[in-house]
Amino acid sequence: MDFGKLALAQAKKLHGKISVISKIKLENKNDLAIAYTPGVAEVSKQIAQNPKLARTLTIKGSSVAIVSDGSAVLGLGDIGPEAALPVMEGKALLFKEFAGIDAYPIVLNTKDPDEIVKVIKAISPGFAGINLEDISAPRCFEIEERLQDIGIPVFHDDQHGTAIVIYAALINSLKVVNKKMSEVKIVISGAGAAGIATAKFLKPKHLVLIDSRGPIHKGRSDHNIYKQQVTHLPHYQDCATLAEAFGGADVFIGLSGKGILSEKEIGFMAKSPIIFALSNPTPEILPIDAKKSGAAVVATGRSDFPNQINNVLVFPGIFRGALDMGSKKITDSMKIKAAETLSSMVTNPTDNRILPVPLEKDVASRIAKAVKSN
Amino acid sequence: MDFGKLALAQAKKLHGKISVISKIKLENKNDLAIAYTPGVAEVSKQIAQNPKLARTLTIKGSSVAIVSDGSAVLGLGDIGPEAALPVMEGKALLFKEFAGIDAYPIVLNTKDPDEIVKVIKAISPGFAGINLEDISAPRCFEIEERLQDIGIPVFHDDQHGTAIVIYAALINSLKVVNKKMSEVKIVISGAGAAGIATAKFLKPKHLVLIDSRGPIHKGRSDHNIYKQQVTHLPHYQDCATLAEAFGGADVFIGLSGKGILSEKEIGFMAKSPIIFALSNPTPEILPIDAKKSGAAVVATGRSDFPNQINNVLVFPGIFRGALDMGSKKITDSMKIKAAETLSSMVTNPTDNRILPVPLEKDVASRIAKAVKSN
Repeated sequence: MDFGKLALAQAKKLHGKISVISKIKLENKNDLAIAYTPGVAEVSKQIAQNPKLARTLTIKGSSVAIVSDGSAVLGLGDIGPEAALPVMEGKALLFKEFAGIDAYPIVLNTKDPDEIVKVIKAISPGFAGINLEDISAPRCFEIEERLQDIGIPVFHDDQHGTAIVIYAALINSLKVVNKKMSEVKIVISGAGAAGIATAKFLKPKHLVLIDSRGPIHKGRSDHNIYKQQVTHLPHYQDCATLAEAFGGADVFIGLSGKGILSEKEIGFMAKSPIIFALSNPTPEILPIDAKKSGAAVVATGRSDFPNQINNVLVFPGIFRGALDMGSKKITDSMKIKAAETLSSMVTNPTDNRILPVPLEKDVASRIAKAVKSN
Repeated sequence: MDFGKLALAQAKKLHGKISVISKIKLENKNDLAIAYTPGVAEVSKQIAQNPKLARTLTIKGSSVAIVSDGSAVLGLGDIGPEAALPVMEGKALLFKEFAGIDAYPIVLNTKDPDEIVKVIKAISPGFAGINLEDISAPRCFEIEERLQDIGIPVFHDDQHGTAIVIYAALINSLKVVNKKMSEVKIVISGAGAAGIATAKFLKPKHLVLIDSRGPIHKGRSDHNIYKQQVTHLPHYQDCATLAEAFGGADVFIGLSGKGILSEKEIGFMAKSPIIFALSNPTPEILPIDAKKSGAAVVATGRSDFPNQINNVLVFPGIFRGALDMGSKKITDSMKIKAAETLSSMVTNPTDNRILPVPLEKDVASRIAKAVKSN
């Protein structure tokens, strides 16, 4: 199936994937007087006295802004805010479908981190959460960090959504190969939003991060502060060569967007390696080739192979939980809880089933519940 | 009926008046692959090549941001962004109900004109129009002026929506008393957003603007540049006293939000005066008292008296027309066309019927059509 062609036909027909609807019928003067003036003044007065009431008396309590500057959209790169809209609409659709959340796309024609921070702070009173999306690294790190204290969760899904699903997939993959997180070595290829966030989130015995110039290590002076931070993680292993980086590694996680993993590198790895080849649309290695080279478990980002690692498994549920609690932040312990809950939804993991598939509908509600009980 | 109590009960039950919905059913993997990745990439690519396509391939073409800083909400004043939300939701509901427009409330926690201008510019790529709402004067004038060249219409409804409906009401009221616009004298009380905009929009023989300190005239040095601009209109009449201001006036338009019009002032006016007592919820004079004092036509902002002057008669239609045309601005000639069309919808105006009532459903479509043919 040519999904691109079908998507374009759908967009032309429907003029977008979402719509804003009214919950109220206006049939007579009184309906208007209740929904609008003069009645609405009473609702405004109540909120003026106690702004927290906006969460129950307006859309705010279930509303998330999906904010992007269009600088790192899918594998397409910096295509601008208008071209990012179809992706943000898709995200909004998934928020609604899986978690009943009213999400609206806000695409920005600025890439300046100062301005993006100011805009998001300014628009925050109308929303209960902010989903940052498709903002390029390293700006995405700075922007998210500077927004952690605005009183509502600000969550860059490309970072944390990805890291959480990977963690869940890894918990179950390690069960399949009968290894423990505390004993394994992980190589992550790609030091963008997802790579950095995943490196910080996982706690294996050893971890190495690779970018387009090779392994990142303390001796290199060409990398940004976020890559530097990773080299100071307690479990980080400084390596100078790819042979060293891959040497004895139990897990490969490809997040570079366009990298290649060959038999040669797999040859350096430990026996029965776990391969997450997550670049889209072209994985670092095809599952069939990875298996031939000895991989015990293979996952990709694609729906046409087994073991799809897709953020949609996490972001609706973790936001639903955060919104229900009126959270000010999405904390690390909420993220860990989400990952553990997701992994627990596969009772007997096998090499062909390490995660629920994205359309299993109770995934979001179970994650939301777990996050709330946290 | 206690509309405030009913409005509060409705808000508690529904948690707001609007919702974001998905137009697409996700039933299987393919649905997801078309609506989201990988299919969506093709839609994004097309828009990246030609950003104008966002108007047909996404929600953008039918999407309006309703932006407020909560500084001048109804008659409640500066109650803050959260408390403004119920009103903005009401506005969004009316956009949908009357014009099929997808409007979303954006409430800001800044009142700085520079910041508001920057925020609106930054979020503009996702919208086909901006409805400014409940922003206090004189900041509202500066903000709107500075946003006229951002490529989509920016329309402060409290100013222009009000001015247009008043103009339409006045066209028909003048027919009732058999006078001509070019021959009458108009007194406007209230030099805020609506008063200033109405003063600039109407073209009578003479016009006087009054604020809380009395008539505005060139000799006064206590007023802002927007009030000054009004005194330089060709038809502006400098007056020093209220007796002079009301002397021989054919029309009174009350827009101060809390002013009072007494028999004494009406006594100064010409015979059979037209009285628009638009302060809400308490008109400057009750219709029954105005009639007793000799008024030929009386209008208010309220739905429980005849002749309700309500912006909902105009903003859905004028935006619908502008969006359908892909307009970059809402021009004066579009505003005049909207007013003339609205007035023409009452074929035989009488003192009890100078405008359609707000729930007459073809009002918006007829205004949209007229604006487009302009």
